[in-house]
Amino acid sequence: MMRTAADIRRMNSFAVVRAIHANGGASRRELVDITGLSFATVAAICTKLLELGVIAEVARKRAPAGRPTATLSLNPEHGFLLGVDIAETYVHVEAFDAALEPISSTQYDIDTHERSPDQVVERVKSAIAAERARHQGRALLGVGVSAPGQVDQVGGTSVFAPNWDWHDVPLRDMLADSVDAPLFLDNPLKSLAIAEMWAHPERRGQDFVVLNLGTGVGAGIAIGGRVVRGRMNSAGEWGHMVIVADGRACRCGSRGCVEAYVGAPGILQTLREAYPDSPLLHGDDQTATIAALAAAADDGDPAALDVIERTSHYLGIATASIVNLLNPDIVLLGSWVAELLGKHLLDRARTHLQAHALAVPMAAVAFELQHPRGNSVSLGSATFALEGYLDSVPDGTTDPETTPRRRTVG
Amino acid sequence: MMRTAADIRRMNSFAVVRAIHANGGASRRELVDITGLSFATVAAICTKLLELGVIAEVARKRAPAGRPTATLSLNPEHGFLLGVDIAETYVHVEAFDAALEPISSTQYDIDTHERSPDQVVERVKSAIAAERARHQGRALLGVGVSAPGQVDQVGGTSVFAPNWDWHDVPLRDMLADSVDAPLFLDNPLKSLAIAEMWAHPERRGQDFVVLNLGTGVGAGIAIGGRVVRGRMNSAGEWGHMVIVADGRACRCGSRGCVEAYVGAPGILQTLREAYPDSPLLHGDDQTATIAALAAAADDGDPAALDVIERTSHYLGIATASIVNLLNPDIVLLGSWVAELLGKHLLDRARTHLQAHALAVPMAAVAFELQHPRGNSVSLGSATFALEGYLDSVPDGTTDPETTPRRRTVG
Repeated sequence: MMRTAADIRRMNSFAVVRAIHANGGASRRELVDITGLSFATVAAICTKLLELGVIAEVARKRAPAGRPTATLSLNPEHGFLLGVDIAETYVHVEAFDAALEPISSTQYDIDTHERSPDQVVERVKSAIAAERARHQGRALLGVGVSAPGQVDQVGGTSVFAPNWDWHDVPLRDMLADSVDAPLFLDNPLKSLAIAEMWAHPERRGQDFVVLNLGTGVGAGIAIGGRVVRGRMNSAGEWGHMVIVADGRACRCGSRGCVEAYVGAPGILQTLREAYPDSPLLHGDDQTATIAALAAAADDGDPAALDVIERTSHYLGIATASIVNLLNPDIVLLGSWVAELLGKHLLDRARTHLQAHALAVPMAAVAFELQHPRGNSVSLGSATFALEGYLDSVPDGTTDPETTPRRRTVG
Repeated sequence: MMRTAADIRRMNSFAVVRAIHANGGASRRELVDITGLSFATVAAICTKLLELGVIAEVARKRAPAGRPTATLSLNPEHGFLLGVDIAETYVHVEAFDAALEPISSTQYDIDTHERSPDQVVERVKSAIAAERARHQGRALLGVGVSAPGQVDQVGGTSVFAPNWDWHDVPLRDMLADSVDAPLFLDNPLKSLAIAEMWAHPERRGQDFVVLNLGTGVGAGIAIGGRVVRGRMNSAGEWGHMVIVADGRACRCGSRGCVEAYVGAPGILQTLREAYPDSPLLHGDDQTATIAALAAAADDGDPAALDVIERTSHYLGIATASIVNLLNPDIVLLGSWVAELLGKHLLDRARTHLQAHALAVPMAAVAFELQHPRGNSVSLGSATFALEGYLDSVPDGTTDPETTPRRRTVG
């Protein structure tokens, strides 16, 4: 889609908020330097954000020559956001202040036999209520919710969650009566990408990929400063790219998908096939088994290292495919499997990536672990809510600048 | 990369030229409706284009009530462009008028033992000279050149052409003395994408992929109205995504790549492995063998149909990977293998695509043969030259509109 003038205004507001956030406060003049926007645009946006209380003047200092300049900061007292990560194995609800700093969180496990929409929604409502109760008296600016699988973010529907066999579940409507604030639904891939973009302003000038390594696997992709959504918001299904034609059955119905090898159940399958009596196996408990695998690898256990090497092989091949196709600046490994196993997977997978990527894109790409503050999917979901909140607020600029005049720094 | 104000101006000029071209002429008022730009912006761009002679007033009619309105058309007499397609097996130089209509072309084969940079450049120079001679007296506005493999379009260098083992060949400098016009170098993937965008204005609002089926295979990708280039302009290497882990050796040095199965030499290998004595085999002559395969398939030859089915299997899987990853509006099959074999491949590949794509992106995607006018890579290369020419010309708009205010139609 082409950018509209409204898009540009929104992006400029975001750029100012992001710059203030990333720099821990800034003067209007510094914001001009950081964002590349004109002083008039920065000033108009700041005026509106001050009126709303989203930002505050925290200090005023006299420049060596001339008028005193005010330092602007995001106002942590203004209100808070909730970011909800509905994963296959847990529900994580995290509160963030308007500066997107994590404040508190509540997490409940989801049992394998409690996966109906009603059961999961009840869990989410309980966790939201717990976080609401902790922050009584503060304004709830918005709630962002990430649900696994394919999500219609406009209609607020979980179109298809393969692990739960959910079809067309109206999640936003089901949750609406538990929150008195705008609710934004999307999936973890988009949440991871937007979280990365807000946390690292330099990402706006980069093409990047966050590989989501969990029960399901996928890719949050941003190109040219925008999250790639595709026609139906289902872009990013890297987990369902085929790497082994006619290979392992995948829960999507196809065969040989990345997810069948690199998703947590795929890793369990590799372990079970190679070492059926392994003490690392905790039945179908993915979290316990992956954690046991990580602990055993720390101790140099040969079976654990073998399973990690096999997984790295597939991860490296699948990463090479996306590196060759998109030639990105950076590919990050994120989500809970990356948190538990990432340090063992990264260098091994890079070896296989190098063997399968073309020289030019390989030389250009950084391949790293994502280091989020708090739960990155919750952070990304909260970010969507903050974007929605800022979106609801007109700013004083009538003549939107299309973009930073020069590349964003800092 | 973010769009700059200059980007926006350029896009608006392109939008006007495209709209005039696609509609076979239009009034300023119609251009406002088609492009979504303001009347003032359209008028300023038209004034500049008229001064330059890129467009002309071809008719003037009186509206039912009010002032006469002029119909503007691209001016075919203004000058011409050359689009050069350097492929692994031929050099094709095509002349286009400023309305991007093909006028004439010259094609030379490249023998397998004439593949040094000097030898290929001599072929290209001869073909350019032949086309130059045909259009003496007309201004040459620019030359676009597509070279296979990875190209540094800024530096004008063929960074790596795997089939020829070219490394860092300064193609633009080597060709510069044969043309007295700006020369733009890129690769066929970007040429196919830009050709598709200019030929079909509705593509600007779509995410689309043109699969380049030739000796090498790759993907021209456009997202949000822009060609995806990646960090080093090497995006689109779909041919080097792995679909068979540890499968066939690929000329890139990896194994199991799409290209090893779907590229013309891969199809020959499939034929040779299954039917080593097949009369369809014409040694290493890819064009003759693929043409023989197509003719035999027309006659219902079981061996030919079997090879096509095997190729379709891999093509369908590899298309599913890109459909799952990007959720595009449309995937097109283009280039010479698609021209020869496309009608036999398309429906068979669609069956395998359906078996491997997720339901949501599958339902959203159109999967079709590309139907270019003339050689689509030459057209795309010429389009880069036209873009460069328009780029060299300032327009009268000081306050660029960021975008069409509504979706482009027509």
